[in-house]
Amino acid sequence: MTETGRKLGCEALGTALLVTTVVGSGIMAVNLAGGNVALALLANAIATGAILVVLITIFGPVSGAHFNPVVTLVMWMRGDLAAGLAVSYVIAQIGGGVAGTLAAHLMFDVTTMQLSQTARTGGAQWFSEVIAAFGLLLTILGCVRYRPDAVASGVGLYITSAYWFTASTSFANPAVTIARGFTDTFAGIRPLDVPVFILAQIAGAVLALVCARLLFESEPARTP
Amino acid sequence: MTETGRKLGCEALGTALLVTTVVGSGIMAVNLAGGNVALALLANAIATGAILVVLITIFGPVSGAHFNPVVTLVMWMRGDLAAGLAVSYVIAQIGGGVAGTLAAHLMFDVTTMQLSQTARTGGAQWFSEVIAAFGLLLTILGCVRYRPDAVASGVGLYITSAYWFTASTSFANPAVTIARGFTDTFAGIRPLDVPVFILAQIAGAVLALVCARLLFESEPARTP
Amino acid sequence: MTETGRKLGCEALGTALLVTTVVGSGIMAVNLAGGNVALALLANAIATGAILVVLITIFGPVSGAHFNPVVTLVMWMRGDLAAGLAVSYVIAQIGGGVAGTLAAHLMFDVTTMQLSQTARTGGAQWFSEVIAAFGLLLTILGCVRYRPDAVASGVGLYITSAYWFTASTSFANPAVTIARGFTDTFAGIRPLDVPVFILAQIAGAVLALVCARLLFESEPARTP
Amino acid sequence: MTETGRKLGCEALGTALLVTTVVGSGIMAVNLAGGNVALALLANAIATGAILVVLITIFGPVSGAHFNPVVTLVMWMRGDLAAGLAVSYVIAQIGGGVAGTLAAHLMFDVTTMQLSQTARTGGAQWFSEVIAAFGLLLTILGCVRYRPDAVASGVGLYITSAYWFTASTSFANPAVTIARGFTDTFAGIRPLDVPVFILAQIAGAVLALVCARLLFESEPARTP
Repeated sequence: MTETGRKLGCEALGTALLVTTVVGSGIMAVNLAGGNVALALLANAIATGAILVVLITIFGPVSGAHFNPVVTLVMWMRGDLAAGLAVSYVIAQIGGGVAGTLAAHLMFDVTTMQLSQTARTGGAQWFSEVIAAFGLLLTILGCVRYRPDAVASGVGLYITSAYWFTASTSFANPAVTIARGFTDTFAGIRPLDVPVFILAQIAGAVLALVCARLLFESEPARTP
Repeated sequence: MTETGRKLGCEALGTALLVTTVVGSGIMAVNLAGGNVALALLANAIATGAILVVLITIFGPVSGAHFNPVVTLVMWMRGDLAAGLAVSYVIAQIGGGVAGTLAAHLMFDVTTMQLSQTARTGGAQWFSEVIAAFGLLLTILGCVRYRPDAVASGVGLYITSAYWFTASTSFANPAVTIARGFTDTFAGIRPLDVPVFILAQIAGAVLALVCARLLFESEPARTP
Repeated sequence: MTETGRKLGCEALGTALLVTTVVGSGIMAVNLAGGNVALALLANAIATGAILVVLITIFGPVSGAHFNPVVTLVMWMRGDLAAGLAVSYVIAQIGGGVAGTLAAHLMFDVTTMQLSQTARTGGAQWFSEVIAAFGLLLTILGCVRYRPDAVASGVGLYITSAYWFTASTSFANPAVTIARGFTDTFAGIRPLDVPVFILAQIAGAVLALVCARLLFESEPARTP
Repeated sequence: MTETGRKLGCEALGTALLVTTVVGSGIMAVNLAGGNVALALLANAIATGAILVVLITIFGPVSGAHFNPVVTLVMWMRGDLAAGLAVSYVIAQIGGGVAGTLAAHLMFDVTTMQLSQTARTGGAQWFSEVIAAFGLLLTILGCVRYRPDAVASGVGLYITSAYWFTASTSFANPAVTIARGFTDTFAGIRPLDVPVFILAQIAGAVLALVCARLLFESEPARTP
């Protein structure tokens, strides 16, 4: 396989496994929690954080383990990858994400094709997504700058925490948001509400890049 | 003790302690959880993930810390160990696993010899086991390739997550599956249902090897 | 931005994100836990511990990642930073902390400006805060002395634990204590009770410095 | 302070903080859990595991961070410390442990001096303690042999897991067992039941030393 093929394969498979975890652990948790939503969210948060550490560890050396269009956007703005490759990354992430939702549905024996009816809208939710994506990108940019070997654990811990401290449970990822539009289970989001979530995530991510440039020490110049 | 004796001792003892944890923490959790199955599974998942990190850390340098016939199978397919030793590994793992179930029964003062009556069958369960073993082996192969010191934490985190994102709670291990046939407690599986679980696990593991060869960069050739 | 500006920015932003996590995850947990306070505290503790690891990892290389006036006090007593900078740190921490409370309120769509009515007073609570701050500073000083790369994980694990083993749930931080005075939610503390908490935290922190000087091996002299 | 004084101080203070965590988090968890014992044990296990990682990280470089007479026993049998120092260690651990129980009582405003009335006896409990101490020492000896930097995280993860997979919730430590005799709260053990627990712990620890000598590769000879 070509190097680009391997990169895109890692982005697609990694995003698929991430979404399978988010959706699948949500279904499992709600099935078992008997109405205790806090317990369901705790299982959901721990499962998602743990798998992120794993996926970034194994796919990071090949593709950078973005699994997230706003991460790819910011890395492109930093000059870390070319525009054409960035677009391919985003397509692979969205495709993989949707496949991940379907895989979770197959494992839990529910209707394969679904559309969510869970409303997630309003200023508080949107502000939550700005903060969620801002914190995620700040985590990534800070680790990349000072402790590259800590990106995987940093992102896993950040997301475990952000499930709880944002009112939206921290989607923070356009590909995952789109994929979660296709499940009418615990993790779902009404397709109608997806676009504004994505705009909020882009805003938070770009804000983090600005903030990182102000706060973190400048690195030696890099050639795009 | 010979080097081979030490390796087999580590595989047997490690698998025994792993199964003791899976079965014992399941009994403890159900005893205390008062019918809250999500809470029981959370305790089960955290206990299993934590002990896996420990066992792989201490036994890995001696035997490789497979504790799992499909891991041994894939390592043999990669040429990492000879066929004869691989067969001995699998026997040690199964023997250790069953001993681990008995040790858990002794600690919790329940009938020592049991057979599970918990049905775990059907396409969704089998597909779950394919995914569970696929993810586990991909985790191992990715860590071995890029971050060998992260195998222990990677496997522990993966299994903690996979308890939740697969409908089968991720057995992903033929020796552990057989051992869990001998307990009619939370972790049990009806012996009748064991063979197809094992086939699904083999399929997932081989699929992961194919996938790893496609996605991860080729390593320098190794002599079997 | 000047080096000092970057340091103060990191202290303000880091403390803000820490308080947003403490307050926000408390609101989320209580909203979902249906009266099960232990479950709410568990989510609160895990979210706080996890974000601390992240924040110390990314901001530590710039400002030292104090986020806490008693940490700054002890570092000043050790001669690690000048008095003027220490005062600026404390102002940035308090300002950031209060902003963090407001951000949490905005995300969860509750009244922005609040004052807590939760009484936290009495000898047992004060003794808890002495122990809480003592343990926190001992953790930091021990890690700085022997395992500087473990400060982030050490503080995160310490606070996760101290939520449970102190009767006050371990505020251990004057800036965070002040900021928590401005929320009448799970994490709140009546402004009237803040001053004695701060005194107890100072006592615990200074005690830890004395204890560290007795127990840890002396380092080569450092110039203030 | 002399080197020996520092070592004993670390053993006493470390064991005190460990017991404060075990007892204090037990009281807090039961106070909040509303009868849900599984949730209380989960908080107890997470708090204890987390503090162990911290305490071993900061005190290990000074005293070895035993905090446990059977660890000291095994290290003495290995020739790692002299008999006289070993006896001093055990006295410091027991004294520190009992002080830790009192500190927890002061923080939670309960009667300072108590004796437990919780029966923990019978063959299943004793066998649990043999397994608990066996696993703990095997973890320590394996990490010391192959990954010395992983002792702290290994012990923390082991104990978090062993709370669940042993029927006794894994005391595994004579000093902590004695200290827990002095609290009639969640973590207590009737003083009458302490001696057999200690015998079982010694048996498990010695068994682990034998097992480690068989399974782990021989190290270069060390001078006592």
